[in-house]
Amino acid sequence: MLNKIFTITLIAFFAMTLAYVAQAKEHPRLILTKEGVEQIRENLGKVPLFDASVEKIKAEVDKEIQMGIDTPIPKDFSGGYTHFRHKQNFIIAQQAGALYQILEDEKYAKYVRDMLFQYEAMYKNLPVHPQVRSYAPGKLFWQCLNDSNWLVYMAQAYDTIYDYLSSEERQTLEDNLFRPFADYISLANPQFYNRIHNHSTWGNAAVGMIGLVMDDQALIQRALYGIEDDGLAVGGVDDDGGTIKAADQKRGFLANLEQPFSPDGYYTEGPYYQRYAMYPFLIFATAMHNTYPEYGVLEHKDNVLLKAIDALLNLTDADGDFFPLNDGQKGMSYFTPALITTVNIGYYYGQQDPKLLSVAQKQGEVLLDQTGLAIALDLEANKAVPFTKQSVNLSDGALGDEGGVAVLRSGNEELTAVFKYAAQGLSHGHYDKLSYSLYRQGEEVLQDYGLVRFVNIGQKGGGNYLKENTTWAKSTISHNTLSQDQSIHFGGDYQTGSQHHSDFYFYADENPQVQVASAKETNAYPGTEMHRTVALIKPSDADEPFMLDIMKVDAQGTHDYDLPFYYFGQIIQTNFAYTRPPTQEPLGNKNGYQHLYLEASGSPSSDTTQFSWLNKGKFYTLSTLTHDEDNIMLTRIGANDPEFNLRNEPGFMLRRPNTQDTVFVSIVEPHGSYSPVTELSLNSNSSIASINLMHDSDAYTGVEIVGVNGESQIFIVANLDAQANSEHTLNVNGQEYKWTGPYWYANAE
Amino acid sequence: MLNKIFTITLIAFFAMTLAYVAQAKEHPRLILTKEGVEQIRENLGKVPLFDASVEKIKAEVDKEIQMGIDTPIPKDFSGGYTHFRHKQNFIIAQQAGALYQILEDEKYAKYVRDMLFQYEAMYKNLPVHPQVRSYAPGKLFWQCLNDSNWLVYMAQAYDTIYDYLSSEERQTLEDNLFRPFADYISLANPQFYNRIHNHSTWGNAAVGMIGLVMDDQALIQRALYGIEDDGLAVGGVDDDGGTIKAADQKRGFLANLEQPFSPDGYYTEGPYYQRYAMYPFLIFATAMHNTYPEYGVLEHKDNVLLKAIDALLNLTDADGDFFPLNDGQKGMSYFTPALITTVNIGYYYGQQDPKLLSVAQKQGEVLLDQTGLAIALDLEANKAVPFTKQSVNLSDGALGDEGGVAVLRSGNEELTAVFKYAAQGLSHGHYDKLSYSLYRQGEEVLQDYGLVRFVNIGQKGGGNYLKENTTWAKSTISHNTLSQDQSIHFGGDYQTGSQHHSDFYFYADENPQVQVASAKETNAYPGTEMHRTVALIKPSDADEPFMLDIMKVDAQGTHDYDLPFYYFGQIIQTNFAYTRPPTQEPLGNKNGYQHLYLEASGSPSSDTTQFSWLNKGKFYTLSTLTHDEDNIMLTRIGANDPEFNLRNEPGFMLRRPNTQDTVFVSIVEPHGSYSPVTELSLNSNSSIASINLMHDSDAYTGVEIVGVNGESQIFIVANLDAQANSEHTLNVNGQEYKWTGPYWYANAE
Repeated sequence: MLNKIFTITLIAFFAMTLAYVAQAKEHPRLILTKEGVEQIRENLGKVPLFDASVEKIKAEVDKEIQMGIDTPIPKDFSGGYTHFRHKQNFIIAQQAGALYQILEDEKYAKYVRDMLFQYEAMYKNLPVHPQVRSYAPGKLFWQCLNDSNWLVYMAQAYDTIYDYLSSEERQTLEDNLFRPFADYISLANPQFYNRIHNHSTWGNAAVGMIGLVMDDQALIQRALYGIEDDGLAVGGVDDDGGTIKAADQKRGFLANLEQPFSPDGYYTEGPYYQRYAMYPFLIFATAMHNTYPEYGVLEHKDNVLLKAIDALLNLTDADGDFFPLNDGQKGMSYFTPALITTVNIGYYYGQQDPKLLSVAQKQGEVLLDQTGLAIALDLEANKAVPFTKQSVNLSDGALGDEGGVAVLRSGNEELTAVFKYAAQGLSHGHYDKLSYSLYRQGEEVLQDYGLVRFVNIGQKGGGNYLKENTTWAKSTISHNTLSQDQSIHFGGDYQTGSQHHSDFYFYADENPQVQVASAKETNAYPGTEMHRTVALIKPSDADEPFMLDIMKVDAQGTHDYDLPFYYFGQIIQTNFAYTRPPTQEPLGNKNGYQHLYLEASGSPSSDTTQFSWLNKGKFYTLSTLTHDEDNIMLTRIGANDPEFNLRNEPGFMLRRPNTQDTVFVSIVEPHGSYSPVTELSLNSNSSIASINLMHDSDAYTGVEIVGVNGESQIFIVANLDAQANSEHTLNVNGQEYKWTGPYWYANAE
Repeated sequence: MLNKIFTITLIAFFAMTLAYVAQAKEHPRLILTKEGVEQIRENLGKVPLFDASVEKIKAEVDKEIQMGIDTPIPKDFSGGYTHFRHKQNFIIAQQAGALYQILEDEKYAKYVRDMLFQYEAMYKNLPVHPQVRSYAPGKLFWQCLNDSNWLVYMAQAYDTIYDYLSSEERQTLEDNLFRPFADYISLANPQFYNRIHNHSTWGNAAVGMIGLVMDDQALIQRALYGIEDDGLAVGGVDDDGGTIKAADQKRGFLANLEQPFSPDGYYTEGPYYQRYAMYPFLIFATAMHNTYPEYGVLEHKDNVLLKAIDALLNLTDADGDFFPLNDGQKGMSYFTPALITTVNIGYYYGQQDPKLLSVAQKQGEVLLDQTGLAIALDLEANKAVPFTKQSVNLSDGALGDEGGVAVLRSGNEELTAVFKYAAQGLSHGHYDKLSYSLYRQGEEVLQDYGLVRFVNIGQKGGGNYLKENTTWAKSTISHNTLSQDQSIHFGGDYQTGSQHHSDFYFYADENPQVQVASAKETNAYPGTEMHRTVALIKPSDADEPFMLDIMKVDAQGTHDYDLPFYYFGQIIQTNFAYTRPPTQEPLGNKNGYQHLYLEASGSPSSDTTQFSWLNKGKFYTLSTLTHDEDNIMLTRIGANDPEFNLRNEPGFMLRRPNTQDTVFVSIVEPHGSYSPVTELSLNSNSSIASINLMHDSDAYTGVEIVGVNGESQIFIVANLDAQANSEHTLNVNGQEYKWTGPYWYANAE
């Protein structure tokens, strides 16, 4: 009996081993798996969203097949035809391969094969791309980055038609195309391949993906761990000023996974680049999971890739647009194809979070693999629950100790404050310590400018970063944060900025009526400490929430401080007088100030300066504490912009001259509405009568907010002790305030 | 037998007469009729859209009843509380009255009664409104116009609760409130009441409506025919500079119906004011129809009111927004409540056009009367057909001989050109002869600026017209038309402008591939003839249509010509070099030029100057014929605007200096697309290679449009003979063109 069991166990063991070996040798094996293909074929015609996705992609691919294959000699930058065509080719080839597996129609396999052989014929003798603007020029594209994109997709396409090809055909493709291609973007370009950067992630994944199809252990190792001896000197910068090689720099896919992601899944470059990097991260990690699960790549660093999916989806406004932190193109959203991959893989290989199903439903399309099938099946089974976003605080830094980003949300994204107190964010980082942006549902109230680049629009500098990205978008004054003496944080020096980060002070989102994030920055301006506390407050009797912003400054010596608020829309009312100069001149000649026209200037006529505007049917009022000597400036972006690369958008700026320590207290408040259809103007006035700084010391800053209804609210922050269980007592004008924790808030008696 | 028939006939005749007399004395009788109420009660709960409208209005009215009645002492301008409250009161009272009839719940009748008695108590001793800015101040509101609004609605409210009141109550209301109210806005303010103007239409309708409820023949006659001896001298102007009394001026409702409407139903002030005026026109005409049909008011002037409904709905973009011709607030659309009335009455009393049903469906609400019920019933019966708009040419002037407005539409509103060659348009008219605006679906491509006013936003000049409305919005240079020597058409003189109009030349929309409108203007600049021809062209092999614009100028002596194009978005490419001055200065000091900043200037480097921009994901290119001496200016609105009343929007301007006769030929072309989500930039280049002026003489102007694909199109317009059957022969470079009619178009051989 025992013997029999042993025998059966042994047989089972061998069977499993054989199955495993067989599986590892079967194709497709990377993303779409043999087993996945079988499930899909069984369910075809039965799962509406999946079937619709097949139909949609089939229509696209059929149209391309109809047009014929074109693999033009590389010539153009992004935005030009050859760039577009090669990019389109790898996307369509990957899709055609999936269709071949699903529909078993040979025309798709033939299409991929023919295209690969056209590339094979061309690649053998292909020189480096003629547009040599990149620190790492590619061959098909102007940079190795895009060549890597090509290989990540083409590896999948090759995987799906692997069994369709003869071994001679495979040999030819591998010898003449895939191995030389992988070597070119890695061995020939270590300055591209061996970095800690999203470029390298793409490069590593590309080499790894093709390595997995071919089961080439050398390439797989090179993907995971980089090139051991790259011969590069420490130092060097890329086209964006990013470091190529730091001292003791790690390398390879795993290092790129460890370094830029915080334990919370925040990617240090910001959501726009995270969206871009997620694809190679997830695709190669998934391919490793499907072929060599023993490496644990998908689960590496305590499942950080799966956490990153959550973090990324949380870094969106109510419309699904990513917050444009650092270099980020506005309008990029979770409707981008890379996010379909992200959501599908995140659902399947993660915890099957039913909230992801409703994102997938909005996306309206799934991947043509087992992950997409799973989503479509579970949507059909009505398992989706709404994707409601809560406030979230995400740490930055590999260890989670380099500041972070807090997203405060009031109501169902009725008001969202995005408070950035992060690290530099590599070469795409902006010099905007303690800045924030504010959203009302899907509308920007106070903007983060984003990047200065017309991605893929060739007429605008080849679709690449424009010089105003550096001179304006990265500058401090272009952000809703404090500039000192009209200078840039860290003097605008990337190396210095990269050594520092803001410090988390506290975060509290338990009370939906008062949610607070607070952080400090001590390095941006040496000798000056900035401590900013941002709160979203919705008193129980109020129609709408507002944002309270306390910026406390401790400095050595006196300085000029500028605090801008970049709003949108038309000015409705001010409680200060201003004058408009007859001509518009730039506000300065450097550090971003050269890009601002001064449209008007004035002086406060009240301790609480108020400024109201109307945008898209909503009124807003900024109320801010002002001193008699303060200057109020109304600005407009667009000066010194010889090629009209900037958007012509307005700002309100408070300038406090010649001051040492000070506190800025501001409230931004949406109110009322205006409709051009009914012509009704409702609640067009602020509900705030005044702000009083009732106390300010090293230890405490207390603010009284007086409403036009006569009622007051009081907010006190403890400046030196953020412990949740610390007890505080503060006496102000005979009134004693006692509380526990870093802040106190209440309606006044 | 004969006798019997006679007897029956006689009885029937008496019965009808009795019924008629009974009907005429019954209440409600104006808009909602006794018979209508019965139909409604029978159908209640059975017609979804009608029931939903009842529920929506019931919710609003119930909320107001809950809040209690407030009739504050008048104090504020529009935008202030007392203005808002009295306006809200008459709207809610009219709705409450309808609910009383429909639901037979006395609380609604009581609410209206109580409100009316509060007004009765206040009105007796009410002085003229304290804000005396109007040429005709009201009592409840700052102008008689708003007082008239009040009475138009309150007459309906009174009508619905007439039978609920005791005769003593009626006597009190009529003696102390309604008759003095009607007399105040008419006899006491003939300068308001006796004009040809939308103000008077409201006044006439108000007096007439209350006259009909009370069956007061004197008031009814005063409404229809005005005040015979008004004691006013010829001349005088209102707040907007509009004439109060012209020589031989007609007066009263019927005259106001005859004068401003053209036989096509175009209202000379433009769609924004037509939308406003339609309500009193239709409401009083309908009330007359329901009480004294023998006057034929609703059918007056060959059913012009019903034609006007069609005309008005055709003066909208694809989103239903009215074209902001003359003074018009952008965003006003057929979703405004007045248009629900318009569509409902137009459907019921007109031809039951099933296209109106689909507009009503979009509006999502119907009137609570027999017209609304009819719409809801027919929608339920699936009678709706889509409201697809065609090209249309609408004459202006009481006799239809004072120019007009042509709306050319290509495809399903894929591209829409609104070409204005109308009369002055009364006091709300702009000095923009032969101007146009261009739309792509619901998006503005080349804008008409509209008005400078924040309607009902008290903080902006009391919600009234701002001075920049005169200095900018009415000026010639603020429009997409020709300015000569930096001056305004007619020297900006209203009296002169009012004596003239542009002249229709020809209009041809039979061929969907080439639709053309052409008109001439000889008075705007004495001695100069401007002849503009606007064509929407969609060659059969083209993806998208484009607009061709030929402006031919014949002048005495030499002049500087400015031709602006007010686009939106960001500049993508130009084929000319330009420089941006370090500071932005105003382009001039008067005639609207003082409001333009010069952002950049350049010179043509090609005979065909091209300028491309990107707006909301769509590329556009302007290609325009230029001379070497031309200047190209890039401008921005907003100079000399001390209170930020203007929108900061860009313009491209072609300046041709020191020229006598000349031709401007321009093409505006949407192409391709850009998506920040996919980051795909498609067809970002113009499809036009060049424009050639192949012939220009007094008799003919011929243009060759050469595509980047090498193919040419030729368009020739006959300048002196617009007869449809005239035959033309033109020889150009040995090629003979023969055709019939005012223009010729073809792809070249």
